[in-house]
Amino acid sequence: MKIGILTIGNELTSGKTQDTNSSFISRELYRRGWQVAAMLSVGDDPDAIKGGLDFLFSVADGLIVTGGLGPTADDITTAAIAGAFGLKLNTDEAVLQHIKDLMTSLNHPWIPNNAKQAVFPEGAETIINRVGTAWGFSLRQDGKIIAVIPGVPSEARQMLLEGVIPILQRDFSDNDHVLTKIIKLSGISESLVDQTLSDAPFTGVSVGFYPRFPDIEVVLTVRDVHQDKAMEKIKRAEGEVVKRLSKHIYAYDQDTLEGVVAALLIGKKITLALAESCTGGLISDRLTDVPGSSAFFKRGLVAYSNESKEDLLGVPAEVIRQYGAVSRETALLMAEGARTRGRTDLGLATTGIAGPDGGTEEKPVGTVFIALADGKSTYCRRFSFRWDRRRNKMLTSQWALLILRKYLTDELDSEQ
Amino acid sequence: MKIGILTIGNELTSGKTQDTNSSFISRELYRRGWQVAAMLSVGDDPDAIKGGLDFLFSVADGLIVTGGLGPTADDITTAAIAGAFGLKLNTDEAVLQHIKDLMTSLNHPWIPNNAKQAVFPEGAETIINRVGTAWGFSLRQDGKIIAVIPGVPSEARQMLLEGVIPILQRDFSDNDHVLTKIIKLSGISESLVDQTLSDAPFTGVSVGFYPRFPDIEVVLTVRDVHQDKAMEKIKRAEGEVVKRLSKHIYAYDQDTLEGVVAALLIGKKITLALAESCTGGLISDRLTDVPGSSAFFKRGLVAYSNESKEDLLGVPAEVIRQYGAVSRETALLMAEGARTRGRTDLGLATTGIAGPDGGTEEKPVGTVFIALADGKSTYCRRFSFRWDRRRNKMLTSQWALLILRKYLTDELDSEQ
Repeated sequence: MKIGILTIGNELTSGKTQDTNSSFISRELYRRGWQVAAMLSVGDDPDAIKGGLDFLFSVADGLIVTGGLGPTADDITTAAIAGAFGLKLNTDEAVLQHIKDLMTSLNHPWIPNNAKQAVFPEGAETIINRVGTAWGFSLRQDGKIIAVIPGVPSEARQMLLEGVIPILQRDFSDNDHVLTKIIKLSGISESLVDQTLSDAPFTGVSVGFYPRFPDIEVVLTVRDVHQDKAMEKIKRAEGEVVKRLSKHIYAYDQDTLEGVVAALLIGKKITLALAESCTGGLISDRLTDVPGSSAFFKRGLVAYSNESKEDLLGVPAEVIRQYGAVSRETALLMAEGARTRGRTDLGLATTGIAGPDGGTEEKPVGTVFIALADGKSTYCRRFSFRWDRRRNKMLTSQWALLILRKYLTDELDSEQ
Repeated sequence: MKIGILTIGNELTSGKTQDTNSSFISRELYRRGWQVAAMLSVGDDPDAIKGGLDFLFSVADGLIVTGGLGPTADDITTAAIAGAFGLKLNTDEAVLQHIKDLMTSLNHPWIPNNAKQAVFPEGAETIINRVGTAWGFSLRQDGKIIAVIPGVPSEARQMLLEGVIPILQRDFSDNDHVLTKIIKLSGISESLVDQTLSDAPFTGVSVGFYPRFPDIEVVLTVRDVHQDKAMEKIKRAEGEVVKRLSKHIYAYDQDTLEGVVAALLIGKKITLALAESCTGGLISDRLTDVPGSSAFFKRGLVAYSNESKEDLLGVPAEVIRQYGAVSRETALLMAEGARTRGRTDLGLATTGIAGPDGGTEEKPVGTVFIALADGKSTYCRRFSFRWDRRRNKMLTSQWALLILRKYLTDELDSEQ
């Protein structure tokens, strides 16, 4: 069954409020094996609502509508839907009493407008709102179904799960199991991922590519009436991706790169100090977003001035003078200085030219050195990024964490 | 003129990705006096795209489309739009060369698939993508206009503002002047802003409130055939907001808090060192996002362990033992230590419990101290935030920068 989603409100079409209901609803439907044909937002206008209903019923068998169920004059969803289907409006006395009781319990005065929320199109089945006065309803028309719930996200979510989905399952059940696997890759272009996977046997598996700067996510989806068959299909497809692209894969599903690196450091009881120049604290910020990061993260030094590189990290002024603050030599000494001064197992350093100014012919904007020191050996790699300041910082932080991950999984090339 | 927005992608209709483009686009259009008739999302399917285009053109004169401009097989927007209008596809050699150059500069191999991104419907006007390979395009058909840009939000935003809106303004200017003023406020709730402004005489001005965690933006919009009248109206309205809420205002229009603070520091030739504990580098990251920040930002110390607070900032172990790492005493010594060790004019410090663990009855999760030292006196303020880890970090960084801004504009209360 295909489903359409209609969200109603001037606050949506004016950009005042981000519509999060459509995304939430489509995710919950997708999980249960239903397909969303279209998601539409229109303002509080009867003609726009009518036009939207007509369009969505032309592409879907079921419709979920949110918004415009409040007590005020601009809440016109119920009347617009009744009008679109040529149905009368009736007051539901049980709902009216429920609303009166709720208002009393909240110490809110009763206002005649509130009675509007107990009015539904004839033939509607009401959907309880356990926390507010805006009840929902569903209607069947010519083998199609429409369910209407409030726009307030917390109420919409609860009523979707407890009210709407059971109705859809009762009236429109197919029995497919839907499974999804997200594979996160870095350091490779979307087109190369596509080409590399073009001859993989993905029978019965849908494959999507989603750029998430600076990365690519490969999303595998299978549906099957048998859960074990679905599991088998997705495992096989995942194996195909891993076989072809393993060296670019850094995480799966909801995991983040900083989370993966943190788990490796904690698991191996390895401590870390950072020396950041061009990333300006971004790597520290990302690692300290992980709860429990204080177990491995001892200190981060944002050594922005040359003086601070000397002072905090012991990089000799002579080295900076001879090779420059943005150089392999400085990066290596920053990593080593972070480690020894911090008395940690590892030191990780970045230095580069984030832009928009400061580039030279030899070292243009985007030139970055990333270095890692462990007391036995040091590693350094030069990069040439070509983005704006913020994205050069992001890309540098990403590569620094990738290098750290590869070191921790013994995959770091010995290149210097 | 009415405009429709079409966002394309299976990641949207499956709920995998929250569509933020529609909301961003509608906000930018609304600000400029255009009305959004409908916002529609469909999957990567030619029939769904064709149906969506037909519906939106039935309710709007202009159409903005995002998504499906990538190099892979599931990116079918260009072909679907050409098909819907019966147009041939041609390769644009200049765009092809631009993509080749970009791939080369990124060290990505050239793959035949990439050539697909240089193909446009005949008669299309291309829209430059300054940072990626997915160029956009616009088409005029029967007095209506369609503009197509990528789905990646950062690219979509830039290309909307620099490419699409100028085309709409050229082809669909009505004679109203639309002026917008954005006023950014911190440390106040949306409902209190609303109540405070409820009796303000905003004649002929539309007023919107937009929560942007942790802030509120008040957006004033006026339209008038006479530009000077529009200017006069918006100035008067701005004056009303400033009169009532001046102490919460920190920036206007496109300015950011870090940008405002950076400009003040640069203008006054004041240097800064940071000592961050619970913010973990986020303040450094924000300040170094501002081009030219190296003029005032000398160093940031992410002193996560107690040892690093002693080592890097000279906070006596005895103070940490007696008062705790999260205390007024430690915060003040961190700020002073950052300043003296960094030989800067100012030292700014944060220490707190970001969560989810580490709270006590006396100092629950969200307890934060922010301190500022200038060599003559020190300032410290205690906060109790009640959010998750990331938002506690964000809120702390925001307040630290607000305190710094107030210091630099001589508005900091003398409270200790």
